[in-house]
Amino acid sequence: MVMTEAREELKHDRKGVERVIAALAASFGNRLVTSRAVREQHANTVTWIANQPPDGVVFPQTTQDVQQIVRLCAAERVPVIAFGAGSSLEGQVNAPRGGISLDFRDMNRLIAVHAEDLDCVIEPGITRKGLNEQLRDQGVFFPIDPGADASLGGMAATRASGTNAVRYGTMKDNVLALKVVLANGEVMSTARRAKKSSAGYDLTRLIVGSEGTLGIITELTLRLAGIPEAILSGVCPFPTVEAACNATILTIQSGIPVARIELLDALQVEACNAYSKLSLPETPMLFLEFHGTEAGVAEQSQRFGEIANELRGGPFDWATRAEDRTRLWQARHDVAWALHGLRPGGHAIATDVCVPISRLADCVTETQRDIAETRLIAPIVGHVGDGNFHVTLLVDPNDQDEVARVHGFLDRLTERALAMDGTCTGEHGIGQGKMKYMPAEFGEPALEAMRAVKRALDPLDIMNPGKIVSL
Amino acid sequence: MVMTEAREELKHDRKGVERVIAALAASFGNRLVTSRAVREQHANTVTWIANQPPDGVVFPQTTQDVQQIVRLCAAERVPVIAFGAGSSLEGQVNAPRGGISLDFRDMNRLIAVHAEDLDCVIEPGITRKGLNEQLRDQGVFFPIDPGADASLGGMAATRASGTNAVRYGTMKDNVLALKVVLANGEVMSTARRAKKSSAGYDLTRLIVGSEGTLGIITELTLRLAGIPEAILSGVCPFPTVEAACNATILTIQSGIPVARIELLDALQVEACNAYSKLSLPETPMLFLEFHGTEAGVAEQSQRFGEIANELRGGPFDWATRAEDRTRLWQARHDVAWALHGLRPGGHAIATDVCVPISRLADCVTETQRDIAETRLIAPIVGHVGDGNFHVTLLVDPNDQDEVARVHGFLDRLTERALAMDGTCTGEHGIGQGKMKYMPAEFGEPALEAMRAVKRALDPLDIMNPGKIVSL
Repeated sequence: MVMTEAREELKHDRKGVERVIAALAASFGNRLVTSRAVREQHANTVTWIANQPPDGVVFPQTTQDVQQIVRLCAAERVPVIAFGAGSSLEGQVNAPRGGISLDFRDMNRLIAVHAEDLDCVIEPGITRKGLNEQLRDQGVFFPIDPGADASLGGMAATRASGTNAVRYGTMKDNVLALKVVLANGEVMSTARRAKKSSAGYDLTRLIVGSEGTLGIITELTLRLAGIPEAILSGVCPFPTVEAACNATILTIQSGIPVARIELLDALQVEACNAYSKLSLPETPMLFLEFHGTEAGVAEQSQRFGEIANELRGGPFDWATRAEDRTRLWQARHDVAWALHGLRPGGHAIATDVCVPISRLADCVTETQRDIAETRLIAPIVGHVGDGNFHVTLLVDPNDQDEVARVHGFLDRLTERALAMDGTCTGEHGIGQGKMKYMPAEFGEPALEAMRAVKRALDPLDIMNPGKIVSL
Repeated sequence: MVMTEAREELKHDRKGVERVIAALAASFGNRLVTSRAVREQHANTVTWIANQPPDGVVFPQTTQDVQQIVRLCAAERVPVIAFGAGSSLEGQVNAPRGGISLDFRDMNRLIAVHAEDLDCVIEPGITRKGLNEQLRDQGVFFPIDPGADASLGGMAATRASGTNAVRYGTMKDNVLALKVVLANGEVMSTARRAKKSSAGYDLTRLIVGSEGTLGIITELTLRLAGIPEAILSGVCPFPTVEAACNATILTIQSGIPVARIELLDALQVEACNAYSKLSLPETPMLFLEFHGTEAGVAEQSQRFGEIANELRGGPFDWATRAEDRTRLWQARHDVAWALHGLRPGGHAIATDVCVPISRLADCVTETQRDIAETRLIAPIVGHVGDGNFHVTLLVDPNDQDEVARVHGFLDRLTERALAMDGTCTGEHGIGQGKMKYMPAEFGEPALEAMRAVKRALDPLDIMNPGKIVSL
């Protein structure tokens, strides 16, 4: 499927690439792979951006390996692209100028857990599920949960979040320190393990969200949370999206520390019922979860039920049993699979925007109208406590008229979010796919500041070039 | 008192400064002040760094005023130094190379409150108390509370925190977006009002903590919190600092969402008893506060009481009445005044470090031993939930031997914190006073990355030069 707008850029000097590949082969043996199939796997594009494979894929095992690879590439001005689980959605791991992909599959160790400090030190290739399995018996967990079982290095690089962000924050809030290989091959430590610091520029958060364009993460120190004593989940139907959004606003305003509050629109509920064998009423629905003590979660859910009632929602149907909870959240996590049932054979294109929560109902409602008027099939799921929602378009890629309509819809979606003081992406990142929205979102002075930072830290433009900002 | 180690650097071309002053006088009339007294007030040094006054002080009223001032200064390479309330502790507002101080006294408007979104938009000169007075009747508050009634612009610039940080985070976590005048006079908006975004580099957090060295903040969008339904405060004695720290660790690990948990060592309790007419047992003491529902705070405090008991602390003596609470926290806020009673005529030098919480007891205990061995008078107060503590030294500035001992002590304090994977400052910032610790804390690659960012955004080195990093 070639629906991309990203242009295949000229590759760097072929001779330079060949010298890098020869040197990597000498050092890394069969940990360097240049087969077409493996290269294409590493230009993973979950959405619809064309696959632009790197020239080679190497599997580092240590920070020193990464330094060596970056130095070899820097000498020949060959791009380096970090690769975690390949679940990014906006072409972040594509190689528009060729270069070397660094797959962190083999750097997936849990280095240390400091349960007293509620932190851990890890390598970037470990996935969020893999990490939580290893943490569980210490009574702690890492709360950030994007849809995919992404690698933690990738989650930091793309400033990921997920359903727990309303209570636990995003990667921005849960990375304490990073070890980063810079474009010159040096390793910097951005911070120490103290919970806070006012020393110097915040290099940690400069790297979080930089999508590998300023440096490559080789170690992370993460904040952890204690596994709550009690968890209570439930679902609550509402007559309209607006009522569901207003209930969310009141819930947060009144200080109920909700851990998850997810909106599914009627179409998405229909898809989930079919796929996950549920029998939910096919109307806008909130999925909720409360964390705390037994008494605490009971009080939180009771108060939420009262708020829902005031807004003609409800009844709030709750499940404390672990298996019921799991079934519910499995259905929520399976929304991406569920929606294929809405249009068998359709290709799914996932996008997201985020607006101030007071504008969320307007933004979702206007977007639903736009979807109908543009004759698209596109259910909506929202991290409603953050004002962040996803539209998943089910598209026939061979229908050129439909593809054109999708492009128009995506542009209007971002324009709508920006007009409401929102952002073109709450959690998917910029990659290649949303670069065109950066000028409208930031304006020239901020964009030029980003370019200046990029030039300062990567003067040769070898770190994942062609993403976020163009030099 | 001249105890500074900061060297008075050569001022820029006098003729250039004179041209800037003449141009400012023409534009700003009596909003430009060049009297020695006012200039020295604006090189406020709450600690012991020598006063290095700017050449003039100007009082902008709009972002456009700030742009004009920066452009005039940039044309002559004259430094610009932002000034809020003058409560910074490490020489952040000093003018070692002269230049123009911008006093934000007149830019103190609350521009908008969005109660549904729990955010507000303000000018930088408003102070935290002033802001909260204006917010109170809307049921929301801004939780970050450094000791002084600092300006919000200064709090963002220095990445301030305070007693509520354990629950509500620091300025890093509570600034949503900034409007910033850059060194070239352009205005950038770092982000939008959405609660989260994964679009582009995190310019907001690059500016937060940059102490005016990368740009001047002229507008802030802040996250607010709902005023809790119930607040419960109390004090709890412990036999040792270690027991108090362990109680704090268990409290946080078990998920009790404590809003404030402050450690006073025995010497500080003694000072508070004398100054604030309290009758607390003169032993290490935790001051605590819980926010939540009536039932929630009762449960939290009961659980804390059980933890304290296990660690031979207690009894936890709690106060729900507002006047008792106020008296207690007034005493906590008055620690700086209280300790003057320990050494009448002594000059107070405040410093802070922050370590992983598991190392806090060790760090405090070793520091107390060092204080005794170095024959100093220095009580300790800690934001113990964050691993952050303050040492306030009461010094006779005319005793050269004592001054030398203080210097040695401060160096050892930072070495000790760094050896425990901590930071040389949890909340006071670097300014001039702690620049010498930056190499040991960050190492050369990270420090060079900071310099590269500084050069990229301020190539003429006019934005508060001589702070954080030297070019």
